[in-house]
Amino acid sequence: MKENHPLKQAYSRSAYPLVGHGKRNVQVLKDALAGVDGDLDSDMYGSGKVIEDFEARMAELLGKPAAVFFPSGTMAQQIALRIWCDERGMRRVAYHPLCHLELHEEDGLKELHGIAPVLLADRERTIGLADVEQMPEEVACLLLELPQREIGGQLPDYDELVAISAYCREKGIKLHLDGARLLEILPYYGKTAAEVCDLFDSVYMSFYKGVGGIAGAILAGDEAFAARSKVWKRRHGGDLISLYPYILSADYYYSRTAHKMAQYYEEAKELAALYNACSGVATKPSVPVSNMFHVHVRLPKEQLESILLSICENTGIGMSSYVAAAGEDASCFEVSIGDRYAGVPKDALRQAFR
Amino acid sequence: MKENHPLKQAYSRSAYPLVGHGKRNVQVLKDALAGVDGDLDSDMYGSGKVIEDFEARMAELLGKPAAVFFPSGTMAQQIALRIWCDERGMRRVAYHPLCHLELHEEDGLKELHGIAPVLLADRERTIGLADVEQMPEEVACLLLELPQREIGGQLPDYDELVAISAYCREKGIKLHLDGARLLEILPYYGKTAAEVCDLFDSVYMSFYKGVGGIAGAILAGDEAFAARSKVWKRRHGGDLISLYPYILSADYYYSRTAHKMAQYYEEAKELAALYNACSGVATKPSVPVSNMFHVHVRLPKEQLESILLSICENTGIGMSSYVAAAGEDASCFEVSIGDRYAGVPKDALRQAFR
Repeated sequence: MKENHPLKQAYSRSAYPLVGHGKRNVQVLKDALAGVDGDLDSDMYGSGKVIEDFEARMAELLGKPAAVFFPSGTMAQQIALRIWCDERGMRRVAYHPLCHLELHEEDGLKELHGIAPVLLADRERTIGLADVEQMPEEVACLLLELPQREIGGQLPDYDELVAISAYCREKGIKLHLDGARLLEILPYYGKTAAEVCDLFDSVYMSFYKGVGGIAGAILAGDEAFAARSKVWKRRHGGDLISLYPYILSADYYYSRTAHKMAQYYEEAKELAALYNACSGVATKPSVPVSNMFHVHVRLPKEQLESILLSICENTGIGMSSYVAAAGEDASCFEVSIGDRYAGVPKDALRQAFR
Repeated sequence: MKENHPLKQAYSRSAYPLVGHGKRNVQVLKDALAGVDGDLDSDMYGSGKVIEDFEARMAELLGKPAAVFFPSGTMAQQIALRIWCDERGMRRVAYHPLCHLELHEEDGLKELHGIAPVLLADRERTIGLADVEQMPEEVACLLLELPQREIGGQLPDYDELVAISAYCREKGIKLHLDGARLLEILPYYGKTAAEVCDLFDSVYMSFYKGVGGIAGAILAGDEAFAARSKVWKRRHGGDLISLYPYILSADYYYSRTAHKMAQYYEEAKELAALYNACSGVATKPSVPVSNMFHVHVRLPKEQLESILLSICENTGIGMSSYVAAAGEDASCFEVSIGDRYAGVPKDALRQAFR
């Protein structure tokens, strides 16, 4: 879909967009900085109070001895896998076929690190214990993405996670968590972040999904892992002289949204039910397990775009800024609930779903 | 030197620090954002007005068809060398032994890209045509750093540059410019940025040295080079959803300092002369060719630290925040002139150098 597609424009202008926290504009950074003292010193190449304090806070949240702030999850995760591969002396890892590293990183893991992936499970479901047990080759590390974003944010049962973790420990396979949306799954599991992370050797978490920050990621693990990740951060060109614009905004928005994840989760279930009540529409998962889900519609892309555009113009409700084709006669879009949803008048919502 | 070294503390509190533009604190970002409309949309993974406009402006400045904004020079330069190596089918480049890639990047070029360097010239001088002609092995690319920072910011004669460029073109060796401090050398050469860059196939420039921004870099070259650099930027984890905090500040400080490089250069010559008039003190180069130089003193590190501390406390003049040992009986520090120098009262300066 082009930059100037009518649906994107209409969504952007709509009174009540349903997805996310708000517009991604400069005000997001201005708001985060408004309460910060201008005299606060910049971090300097990974050192200094502003970065060290935040890393310590995130290490505590995640229940790990150390945490390192990265400009991106792409960088953090490749590095985590590289460290575990070097430790095992084996350039092979396992992950889901719709893993971020497989789809969205231009094969950085292969091109920069020479690491080959073994793909587990398939496009319909998450990785289970049986997939891990039946892996055709040895791997240094298994990456689990919770929730599995590209299939609507599905999650394995918690017992399955525990069993996979126990199996990996027994076999000497390191377990890495792609927790880009870690906070978003805690209400469904009924666990703390530290409890979930305790099943994993290393954890990545993002600050611009449910948290609502500008960019940036944290990578957590033991002290030796963290120290090695800083060397690789320098090698990747991610050890910037100043990362504070991302750190301060991550801190600010974390403080504002981390405690609202249960609300976003309940709202996601409410909105998914509205979609599922429509003919020819089904959400994946049918009942969300986080703040996100995908909406699948038995209509061609162009037709669904027209309908969403019309709803947007007639009711002020922006359901999605885009539609993706899913074969010839079906289409879909992603929904992630943030601060916007709570402000949508129920009347307008009911009218849009009539 | 530890974080809390008395000299660093005294320099930080001094009335008249001589080096740089000002403190690296959050106010630097706040100032850059103050005049920016909060409604301005974020860039999105390398697209959008805020990044594309700035890239176009920098491409024009550098006289290249295309420019790509990067979070760091470390990332930009490894990528430039990788592209030229891939094009030639040869993982070997040439650069100075005190090149940033050799000293400050934890061997990212070797570890991530498998590229081996051939080291030209030595710790006392810049690379000349003879070094290039006598290279023992073929290389895909030659990197020249102008000015050569680790030896005080020395420069080759412009004619030598022209000859190296002509030789490289004849031999099919790509020429890459580490122009972290490109603007800073233009007054000495009496050339425009585009004229200097015309000698090179690719160019990197930084925004937090003489420019005074927060972080970030530009990489410029032809359209195909730029397109490939974006793929590698994604692979490195540098294609952030939002780079605007760095872009907006680069833009803001570029507009405020780019036209002052001749002033900084003149001031550097003035200050270097003051140092050279002191017994046992010599600057490198003896007459600066940019806004920077190194001060070498025939005193052990600890003794020079005490002297600088005493000058700082007695006159308010902060000459340096640190001293590095240069063997047992000598020491040195780096000076880069920015906005601060012009504000230093001549009386205080004379008193400090008495």
